[in-house]
Amino acid sequence: MRPIDLRSDNTAGAEPYVLEALAAANTGTAASYGDDEVSARLARRVSETFEREAFVFPVVSGTAANALGISALCPPWGAVVCHEGAHILVNEAMATSMFSGGAALLGLAGEGSRLTTAALTACLERTAWDDPHSSQPAVLSLTQATEMGEVYQPEEIAALAEVARSRGMRVHLDGARVANAVAALGCTPADLSWRAGVEVLSLGATKNGTMTADAIVTFDAAVAQELRFRLKRAGHVASKGRFQAAQLDAYLTDGRWLASASRANAAMAQLLAGLARLGYEPVVPARANLALVAVPDEISARWAQAGVQFYVIEPGVVRFVTSWATTDADITTALHRFQHDSGRA
Amino acid sequence: MRPIDLRSDNTAGAEPYVLEALAAANTGTAASYGDDEVSARLARRVSETFEREAFVFPVVSGTAANALGISALCPPWGAVVCHEGAHILVNEAMATSMFSGGAALLGLAGEGSRLTTAALTACLERTAWDDPHSSQPAVLSLTQATEMGEVYQPEEIAALAEVARSRGMRVHLDGARVANAVAALGCTPADLSWRAGVEVLSLGATKNGTMTADAIVTFDAAVAQELRFRLKRAGHVASKGRFQAAQLDAYLTDGRWLASASRANAAMAQLLAGLARLGYEPVVPARANLALVAVPDEISARWAQAGVQFYVIEPGVVRFVTSWATTDADITTALHRFQHDSGRA
Amino acid sequence: MRPIDLRSDNTAGAEPYVLEALAAANTGTAASYGDDEVSARLARRVSETFEREAFVFPVVSGTAANALGISALCPPWGAVVCHEGAHILVNEAMATSMFSGGAALLGLAGEGSRLTTAALTACLERTAWDDPHSSQPAVLSLTQATEMGEVYQPEEIAALAEVARSRGMRVHLDGARVANAVAALGCTPADLSWRAGVEVLSLGATKNGTMTADAIVTFDAAVAQELRFRLKRAGHVASKGRFQAAQLDAYLTDGRWLASASRANAAMAQLLAGLARLGYEPVVPARANLALVAVPDEISARWAQAGVQFYVIEPGVVRFVTSWATTDADITTALHRFQHDSGRA
Amino acid sequence: MRPIDLRSDNTAGAEPYVLEALAAANTGTAASYGDDEVSARLARRVSETFEREAFVFPVVSGTAANALGISALCPPWGAVVCHEGAHILVNEAMATSMFSGGAALLGLAGEGSRLTTAALTACLERTAWDDPHSSQPAVLSLTQATEMGEVYQPEEIAALAEVARSRGMRVHLDGARVANAVAALGCTPADLSWRAGVEVLSLGATKNGTMTADAIVTFDAAVAQELRFRLKRAGHVASKGRFQAAQLDAYLTDGRWLASASRANAAMAQLLAGLARLGYEPVVPARANLALVAVPDEISARWAQAGVQFYVIEPGVVRFVTSWATTDADITTALHRFQHDSGRA
Repeated sequence: MRPIDLRSDNTAGAEPYVLEALAAANTGTAASYGDDEVSARLARRVSETFEREAFVFPVVSGTAANALGISALCPPWGAVVCHEGAHILVNEAMATSMFSGGAALLGLAGEGSRLTTAALTACLERTAWDDPHSSQPAVLSLTQATEMGEVYQPEEIAALAEVARSRGMRVHLDGARVANAVAALGCTPADLSWRAGVEVLSLGATKNGTMTADAIVTFDAAVAQELRFRLKRAGHVASKGRFQAAQLDAYLTDGRWLASASRANAAMAQLLAGLARLGYEPVVPARANLALVAVPDEISARWAQAGVQFYVIEPGVVRFVTSWATTDADITTALHRFQHDSGRA
Repeated sequence: MRPIDLRSDNTAGAEPYVLEALAAANTGTAASYGDDEVSARLARRVSETFEREAFVFPVVSGTAANALGISALCPPWGAVVCHEGAHILVNEAMATSMFSGGAALLGLAGEGSRLTTAALTACLERTAWDDPHSSQPAVLSLTQATEMGEVYQPEEIAALAEVARSRGMRVHLDGARVANAVAALGCTPADLSWRAGVEVLSLGATKNGTMTADAIVTFDAAVAQELRFRLKRAGHVASKGRFQAAQLDAYLTDGRWLASASRANAAMAQLLAGLARLGYEPVVPARANLALVAVPDEISARWAQAGVQFYVIEPGVVRFVTSWATTDADITTALHRFQHDSGRA
Repeated sequence: MRPIDLRSDNTAGAEPYVLEALAAANTGTAASYGDDEVSARLARRVSETFEREAFVFPVVSGTAANALGISALCPPWGAVVCHEGAHILVNEAMATSMFSGGAALLGLAGEGSRLTTAALTACLERTAWDDPHSSQPAVLSLTQATEMGEVYQPEEIAALAEVARSRGMRVHLDGARVANAVAALGCTPADLSWRAGVEVLSLGATKNGTMTADAIVTFDAAVAQELRFRLKRAGHVASKGRFQAAQLDAYLTDGRWLASASRANAAMAQLLAGLARLGYEPVVPARANLALVAVPDEISARWAQAGVQFYVIEPGVVRFVTSWATTDADITTALHRFQHDSGRA
Repeated sequence: MRPIDLRSDNTAGAEPYVLEALAAANTGTAASYGDDEVSARLARRVSETFEREAFVFPVVSGTAANALGISALCPPWGAVVCHEGAHILVNEAMATSMFSGGAALLGLAGEGSRLTTAALTACLERTAWDDPHSSQPAVLSLTQATEMGEVYQPEEIAALAEVARSRGMRVHLDGARVANAVAALGCTPADLSWRAGVEVLSLGATKNGTMTADAIVTFDAAVAQELRFRLKRAGHVASKGRFQAAQLDAYLTDGRWLASASRANAAMAQLLAGLARLGYEPVVPARANLALVAVPDEISARWAQAGVQFYVIEPGVVRFVTSWATTDADITTALHRFQHDSGRA
């Protein structure tokens, strides 16, 4: 019985076009460390994608994208304000604190996995500004789509960024699944980033089809200049940079990234609809390709035995993630196995 | 006129088998962050290659390999002793100092680009041991092949390591071109590493045929355990780890890595022989795929105009590097262009 | 009208014996950087005070004592578990994170300001041990007396330390007011430290009578050796070390430190008794020289106008701190002013 | 036989006025962490001393002053250019690298212990500017008086600073013995600092009369604001700040610091004159209170036995340091002992 893998979009392979792009880039010699034509093409592609001049830095992981991107926005004595469930706070081994020279990560509560302007405002109001005893909030980091599969509307990001900027803070977006959010919202990448006040963006790609390439994108030339140095000394500049750039360039070409994300989102919608028919509901509204669903442990244990892979992230709560590679048949099969086993309960 | 690129082995593309390995790894889903079958296979392959249990950590750059590998050997108040021309000291933007929490890099003079036991011994004798005012030498880092294309004999490494260990220091090898050294020396990887006292090794691969994958190799389980954490918080763990592992696994399979290195070495030997006929000699003995050659600037300027790419690294000294991809025809063409233009001088 | 200062024990001056000790130490020349006779005498004094071999490092602030002491116990990828109101988490600008190379500070809830074994156990149970995505709990840091004026019994510290050590964690005590705790509990310094499992201790002294000298005390020779290097490179080794040592040596001589703490504690008891008669009670049981008292803001505002200095730390809660220098007359005067102004309410 | 201590100005005690100032500051309560009247008075005193608005931060060591001061001028990827014998490079355990987040320290050769504009210019010309592989020179750090007892003329500092600023570098002065330099040169503190282009200064005081207080002085308000945060998180803000400020304020009052330095300088001049009569000469011109003198080891060994303390810093070279506390009689006695023992040779 073939297992249906709904553990993570990280478990999927790469889209075929990625291999084609790598092969196409593998021609002759090229200047190293990103000073090549493919990297230049990627830079243009990113600027087109975001409808303004943007600077792009390929990296090998989302953790690198987040931690290095934020480190260029935050002084060592600063604090990064994020949701208490943010990946940078919970799952990245304090990489952001390390690269920034010791910055604090300040997690705020927020229904589901979304920050609110009320929570942010309250946090900033209780801050001891200009008091050296206290880390100074310097960066707001939002995750889009969130760690629980929710999304922020562009105007929600803009409102949060407005609060942040009123206190001199800068704005970062952890876009590990930003393609899924763009696809879900039907907006443009610009709407979710600089038009809403985002200055530095982790542009997730690996989860959504590339092999080893995510990217930092910034719209600020001074930040970009600083990142050149920060990445090199962090060992995050590949010598044959064209092979990182080629993956990302192909990813952003002809709307592939959004097509892939749409497929993943549709698979999740199909899954959630089927689960709803079985009586299982997400614990927060799920708009992208990830959902937390309330499922009794004895049920989920049987589902696992029936050949569907997923994570029980806390008692009674199961996490499902779909990817660009998830097929209709995968979901149909999974739901069939769920139904069969739920029925026996 | 097609330029002949002798700038760096980083300008070459990837070997065709790398693309095949990536395609082969791109099947179905797999656990993320290196907990997959390809990564397990790589671990076995590395142990076989080095003839003992070894631990391997794919990374995206040699800088990451060096800096993170050393950081697991060196306390923040330690000093890393290396040659004054070592890549870690001169070309890696102090990544080693950053990842180790502020360690000193102590460059010693040494004829050509090789450290001597005499220089190392003198350094250790003048050290203020146990004096907190002074960084304490904690790691010896050797480069093999060296930054100038020389090599250490296994017994030379062993002798240096012996001196280091007599003062409690640990031993690191920057093996950005270790394949070329193994091929040139006709010894085994074990001879150049743990048998000679090396505890952590940067296993270069990108320069010699892979796309985006180098590796840290260690023979010490405690260092390996520490590296798991150090890599994650540095953002150097790829989520789809199989694609990093696949490149390295293919690289080490069927002696490909040494075959590629041998081709590069042979190309350099062919080049040097031709240059000698023209009256140009390397400034230090060159055994691998890199050489510094004394060439008057007015001559090298004409060679560049004639369609050969290389770096003038200081007045009167040219650096040539060959790679797995350099062909006999490339060298013949380059020499032809040199001859033509030298003749006019 | 002379203000009565109950803001902090940091606002008090130094005990007269400190000036005498400085004058006594100011004789002739002495080896620098702690290699002098006064420093040697302090080392013996600390060992006697703690009834076993101990190593002492004078520092200029409690923040230095905490951050450097913990940094010698915690790897960069570790987490320091403490109360959510711990000074190291809330008031020290992430110094501990900086000196440890990026360690996480993990604040746990706990009634009043005390950690419980239940909370600690729950935290350790939900930890993803050996998972590089998560900071690994490595140090338990307790504050004694706590930030809210409570104390831990020796057996409570021992029970918490036991839980910590069952997971390989090490134990640190922030003893900014440990003298007050020892005096309040009537136990010995050993009872509250190594006998209860504490390995590194911040020995507060400045709040309790010295001018510019606190200390790190450890019972672990390897930690002590590491601290020699950590302190030097942090700039925390005074060249004329005898003047730091002299303050601490005098402090610990003839039970002065406990006599001073007892006076401060007694002043607080007198204050709380008077406040109770006026109808104001501490929000948690206060045993040492600091108390949080529930006082309506309109009342506390009048008290402030009446010439008593203190901090309103949140709406409706006032913090009082007494010191070695607080006199019976100070408290009597303060209570008189309170009574007068409460009466008008 | 009373030993004559010429090891270091760190072995001297404190001037009597320091104890008086501490006693005077020990009156009543005062706001903590430098928000007190004595600290405010020090700030005014420093501005008067330097003839313009200056910001002052007391610290407990010269290492702290240098490392923290420079860290506010240098990005983590920067390099600090200094003499190869600079204290920050040789004797401070890489504190500057640690506090700056991994900056390189780049030591240049220079006759005696002085940097030259030629050496600095050559260094900057061979720098790979804007190349992320290379640390970017960002700070010039000069030591005044130098580690070998030489001094820079104000116009020499200005010329070096001019070269530095032409490449966007900032200028730091390690003034561990700046008082001796001011006294020796007969210029003003302003002449040696901001008028010559110095932006941040380590104002040594402990060697020259205080107990535990040196200071960072800056003329740049933005640097000062950053230092507030950097010092706090480094644990370098004393809670009872008035006692650090009081030492420095007394030091700078009524020209005491220059009077003390003049005495030390005069003692050194007397010593050197006497040594010259005995046939021993300094290896570089000594202008302040420190000199390296060529003395055969067999002679210096006898001098040591005869009751004079000093350091043999390398075979055949002895270091003498005088201090504010060195008396005419000390020097006369030392010379008498030297003569007696040289005569026997």
